[in-house]
Amino acid sequence: MEINVNKHISGQFNDELEQIRNDVLKMGGLVEQQLTNALNAVNNSDTKLARQVLENDYLVNKLEVQIDEDCTRIIAKRQPAASDLRLVLAIIKTITDLERIGDEAERIANVALESFNKAQQEFLVSMDNMGRKAINMLNNVLDAFARMDVDAAFKVHKADKKLDKEYEAITRQLMTHMMEDPRSIPKVMDVLWSVRSLERIGDRCQNISEYVIYFVKGKDVRHTSEADIKDKVLS
Amino acid sequence: MEINVNKHISGQFNDELEQIRNDVLKMGGLVEQQLTNALNAVNNSDTKLARQVLENDYLVNKLEVQIDEDCTRIIAKRQPAASDLRLVLAIIKTITDLERIGDEAERIANVALESFNKAQQEFLVSMDNMGRKAINMLNNVLDAFARMDVDAAFKVHKADKKLDKEYEAITRQLMTHMMEDPRSIPKVMDVLWSVRSLERIGDRCQNISEYVIYFVKGKDVRHTSEADIKDKVLS
Repeated sequence: MEINVNKHISGQFNDELEQIRNDVLKMGGLVEQQLTNALNAVNNSDTKLARQVLENDYLVNKLEVQIDEDCTRIIAKRQPAASDLRLVLAIIKTITDLERIGDEAERIANVALESFNKAQQEFLVSMDNMGRKAINMLNNVLDAFARMDVDAAFKVHKADKKLDKEYEAITRQLMTHMMEDPRSIPKVMDVLWSVRSLERIGDRCQNISEYVIYFVKGKDVRHTSEADIKDKVLS
Repeated sequence: MEINVNKHISGQFNDELEQIRNDVLKMGGLVEQQLTNALNAVNNSDTKLARQVLENDYLVNKLEVQIDEDCTRIIAKRQPAASDLRLVLAIIKTITDLERIGDEAERIANVALESFNKAQQEFLVSMDNMGRKAINMLNNVLDAFARMDVDAAFKVHKADKKLDKEYEAITRQLMTHMMEDPRSIPKVMDVLWSVRSLERIGDRCQNISEYVIYFVKGKDVRHTSEADIKDKVLS
C-alpha cells in the first residue's frame, strides 16, 4: 500500500515536472516566433508585423512569471533532490534567458518601424543572414532541451563562436559604411544595435546549452573552456 | 530534547543562510571594485589597472559557481519553504546579474587599453559621470540586499530611469560627434559600447532590486509598472 502511495505521489510529481517542461518549450516556441517575426518585419519593412511583436512581448513575460511560480511551488511542495532539483533549477535559469531573447526580438522589431534607403537595405540582408543563424541556434537549443541531449547542446555551445565572428565582420562593414557616409550614421546605428542583439541571443542560447549539460551531467560548465567541457564532462 | 535538536538544526540552517548572504555581499563588493577599477582605468588611461580588472574576472565567476552550488545544496539538504526558499531563489538570480555586471566591467576595462585624442577624451568624462551613477546604483542595491530593505530597493528601481535618460543623451552626443568627424568613428564606438554597458548595469541593478522586493514581499514584481509596485506591493 505504501509503495502504491509513493508511486502515486511520484507519478503526480512526474506529471508536474512534465507539465513545466512543456511550458518551457511553449515559451521557447513563442520566443522563436517573436524573433522570426521581428526579422521578417525588418526584412519586408512590415510595420504591422513589427507592432505585433511589440504587443506580444507581454505573453513571453507572463509565461516566464508563471513557470517561475510553478518551479517555486514544486520545490516547496515536492522537495526535489538530485536530478529533479537540477531540472527545476535549470528551468528557472532557462526561462530567464528566454525572456531576455524575447526582449532582444522586441528591440529588433523596432528597427522595422524605420525606413531605409537602398544602400542601407543591403545591411539588412547581412543582418537577416545572421538572424537566421541565431534562430537556428535557438531552435537547436530548444530541441536539445526537449530531448535533454548533451551532444546537441554542446553543438549549440560551439556554434556561438561562428555567430560571434559573423557579428564582428558585419560590425566592421557597418563602421566602414558610416565613415564613408556619415549622414547614414543614425540609421546604421540602429542596424548595429540589432546585430548586437543577435550576438547576445547567441550568448543566451549558449547559456541554455550549459543548463542542459548541467542537468544531464550534474556539472556546472559555465566559465569552462570548450576543450575542458569535451574532455572532462562529456567524455 | 526534540525541541533542542530542532533548535540546533534550525540554528545551523540559519548560519548556512547567513554565510551565503555574506558570500553574495562579498561577491557584490568584488564586482563593485571591478567596475570602479575599470572606470578609473579608462579615466586615467591606466592600462595596468585595466589588465588587473581583466585578470580578476575569474574571481567573480568562481564566487558565482560556489554560491550557486551552496544554494543547490541548501535546497536539497534543508528543503526550505516560504521565505527561506524565496531567499535562496533570490540569491540564485542575484548572483547571475552580479556576474554579468562583472562581464560589463571587463568590457569597459578593455577601452582603457586604447588611446584617445583630446576631443575624444571629453566623451570619457561624460562616460565617467554616468559610470559613477551606475556604481552608486550598484552600491545602493547591495545595501538594500544586505538589509533586505524594500524601500531602498524601490529607490534603486526608480533610479534606473535617470540612468537611461543619461545614456540617451550621451549616445546622441556621440553620434553627432561621429557625423562631424567620421575618422573618429572606431574610437567613439568603443565609448558607445561602454556607455551601453553602463546602461545594462543599471538594468541589472534594477533586476536585483526586484529580487529584494520579491524576497521581502513575496511578490514577483518583474514586468510590473512602478506605479503598480508602489500601490499594490509596497503600500
